[in-house]
Amino acid sequence: MKRLKGEASEILTALQREHTQVQNDTLDVEVQVETIIKEVAQYGDQALRRYSSQFDHVELTELEVSKDTIEQGYIRVEKEVIDSLKKAKENIISYHEKQKQSNFMDSEKSGVIRGQLVLPLERVGVYVPGGTAAYPSSVLMNVLPAKIAGVKEIIMVTPPTSSGIPDVILAAAKIAGVDRVFQVGGAQAVAALAYGTESISKVDKIVGPGNIYVATAKKQVFGLVGIDMIAGPSEIGILADETANPVYIAADLLSQAEHDVLARAILVTTSERLADQVEKEVYKQLQTLPRRKIAEQSIENKGQIIIVPTIEAMFTVMNEIAPEHLEVQLPDPMSYLHEIKNAGSIFLGAYACEPVGDYFSGTNHVLPTSGTAKFYSPLGVYDFVKYSQVTYYTKEALADAKDAVAILARKEGLEAHARAVDYRFE
Amino acid sequence: MKRLKGEASEILTALQREHTQVQNDTLDVEVQVETIIKEVAQYGDQALRRYSSQFDHVELTELEVSKDTIEQGYIRVEKEVIDSLKKAKENIISYHEKQKQSNFMDSEKSGVIRGQLVLPLERVGVYVPGGTAAYPSSVLMNVLPAKIAGVKEIIMVTPPTSSGIPDVILAAAKIAGVDRVFQVGGAQAVAALAYGTESISKVDKIVGPGNIYVATAKKQVFGLVGIDMIAGPSEIGILADETANPVYIAADLLSQAEHDVLARAILVTTSERLADQVEKEVYKQLQTLPRRKIAEQSIENKGQIIIVPTIEAMFTVMNEIAPEHLEVQLPDPMSYLHEIKNAGSIFLGAYACEPVGDYFSGTNHVLPTSGTAKFYSPLGVYDFVKYSQVTYYTKEALADAKDAVAILARKEGLEAHARAVDYRFE
Repeated sequence: MKRLKGEASEILTALQREHTQVQNDTLDVEVQVETIIKEVAQYGDQALRRYSSQFDHVELTELEVSKDTIEQGYIRVEKEVIDSLKKAKENIISYHEKQKQSNFMDSEKSGVIRGQLVLPLERVGVYVPGGTAAYPSSVLMNVLPAKIAGVKEIIMVTPPTSSGIPDVILAAAKIAGVDRVFQVGGAQAVAALAYGTESISKVDKIVGPGNIYVATAKKQVFGLVGIDMIAGPSEIGILADETANPVYIAADLLSQAEHDVLARAILVTTSERLADQVEKEVYKQLQTLPRRKIAEQSIENKGQIIIVPTIEAMFTVMNEIAPEHLEVQLPDPMSYLHEIKNAGSIFLGAYACEPVGDYFSGTNHVLPTSGTAKFYSPLGVYDFVKYSQVTYYTKEALADAKDAVAILARKEGLEAHARAVDYRFE
Repeated sequence: MKRLKGEASEILTALQREHTQVQNDTLDVEVQVETIIKEVAQYGDQALRRYSSQFDHVELTELEVSKDTIEQGYIRVEKEVIDSLKKAKENIISYHEKQKQSNFMDSEKSGVIRGQLVLPLERVGVYVPGGTAAYPSSVLMNVLPAKIAGVKEIIMVTPPTSSGIPDVILAAAKIAGVDRVFQVGGAQAVAALAYGTESISKVDKIVGPGNIYVATAKKQVFGLVGIDMIAGPSEIGILADETANPVYIAADLLSQAEHDVLARAILVTTSERLADQVEKEVYKQLQTLPRRKIAEQSIENKGQIIIVPTIEAMFTVMNEIAPEHLEVQLPDPMSYLHEIKNAGSIFLGAYACEPVGDYFSGTNHVLPTSGTAKFYSPLGVYDFVKYSQVTYYTKEALADAKDAVAILARKEGLEAHARAVDYRFE
């Protein structure tokens, strides 16, 4: 693991340098994706079938996965997995229901009513990646907040394979309450959701993680439909002092590292002794991990231990990192809550380990990565609603507003705006 | 004005065809903007000065506009304009304060605490366009919600001119509480805010309208920093029956049309007679408008009158249009509120004319355009905060969660996730 030691200000300078490197756009991918989107917009299902054959090597007759196929998949999944998914669902619902917002409506001034409506999106598309591993937990995390928001139709898309969609993904779709499932993946799936085809209805927003083609396609259709954030590699930041247990910390760092060779596991501590113990323990635990190769590369290339002189400096540094997951393994962790400015999901104390958030606690595991916790939020119910403003004025109330409107409109050179008020008093 | 008449379903088909045309990307602009961003990221202030000279034909020594210059500008603005801006500010504050959200924290299960923190963004950049017209009202609309959210530093950027920044813009910046003003515009200003330079601090989010270069630059830095929606041409949709006043409707349609030749003014009505009256009145009022040329082109090319058989059909059609501004000029307008699914800002009744929302009522005038009200919201306090999840578990609570976490983690092939829990019980 890379080790940094110094005052907060020195560490910040080093981190900022990493942060502001100009991203190299993958122009080649962009051009390919642009072509795919245009083809799907123009040729619809026919283009989807062509791309499935070309990219997924699957000849599709039916794009939609039937209710019967979903049911069959569900039945084949082990009971303990189904039960665990159902428990997770309960917790996700009980947490996310607290994010629901109410309309408001004021009547402070005579003859004036102003309000805000909270309205659900009508139709949402959820992308579920294919590839080697199937992540049913992500299906729950993406779909359930939309359900709670009141979205009327949720469409899931996932790449076809010659052996069909994994049973556990179909089971998760059923448990989460997905309305329709289509076996189409990649940029072409995003295009289908954004433009609509004969089979797939145009949606208002597309969420869910995917590879570089999916991410690029989402970025390209952004504006025509809404999208969630562009996900980067997973991260964990752990704050700990000399009282923390190095075994737990090492295990939690590795739980991030096993995701991806680009995943970042970072410990910020005041204790050089803890740093040494954690590093030793990380390499010990690595030995027996099934995904050792991935985790090892992540730890070697992206892992960091940062040693700073004070608790205050720990928070200064971590707020600049703005980690996706933040563990605070300090005595009396609640007392530090107000020090945290930027973090997607905060885990307090030795027993709130990050995997409990991935699978069980009910908080969302779709989180802002790569320092974007400075301005993005976890996926939530708020991502599946939009607001409408409401204004009502009586003639008397408009009379009071008349002069100010006219003065400002004319100052901006917009005479017709001023006259729209004037005509009402002629 | 273009006239459409038919059942809701026929109108919808015609509208959907308009909506789903593939946007032609302006690749040339994209490449230019990419270069500008890279130069600013690398050369900082030096690049900003070079582009000011090249694009704005202004040789800048100081990038920042001094407090003294702002004060001087403020003093030169007419008192009635200052007073009107201050009244507008009061109303904007009283409306947007209702958008503030609280943290929540639950304790439903023994040993488990879950919560959500609402945290302000640290630093925000506001782009204020230059060009022929100065829009002080937009400065208030972009800055005040950020102030209310608790953003610590608000940086305004606006293109330099040989005669300086317009007084009324400086006055609005002072009234709104902008912290620093820089005279830099275009894609280079967006790049400076996204990457930071010697003079301009990197921000967390960039908001505010701009030309194609500004919009493209915002799209390109999206992900490195947050951005607001990409604004399209302004729109108004008016719902009215035979009881409505054609003079008011014509005036309101023209108040949108005068913005831009691409602005869309749309009347949906059940009354052919009203349609005729409004059309006649529009051409009559046009004659004496200072911005007649612009308004006329907008009305000719983009204006629409849609005639449908029923009130219900009116709403079906308007929800598909999803207008930026929606006026409901029907008797007892409040009774139709629940019919509205998609609209940025709703104006109810004959006297809630849209310009009162642009300048005075306190609702925001930065709104979703081009049908994006289906998934975007007006600019609000929620755009300047982000959420952090909080989770606390005791050892006993984790013991309850242990099996479900392990089962799901192992099902997903993520052994290190399962072990992070297991190690805590060894």
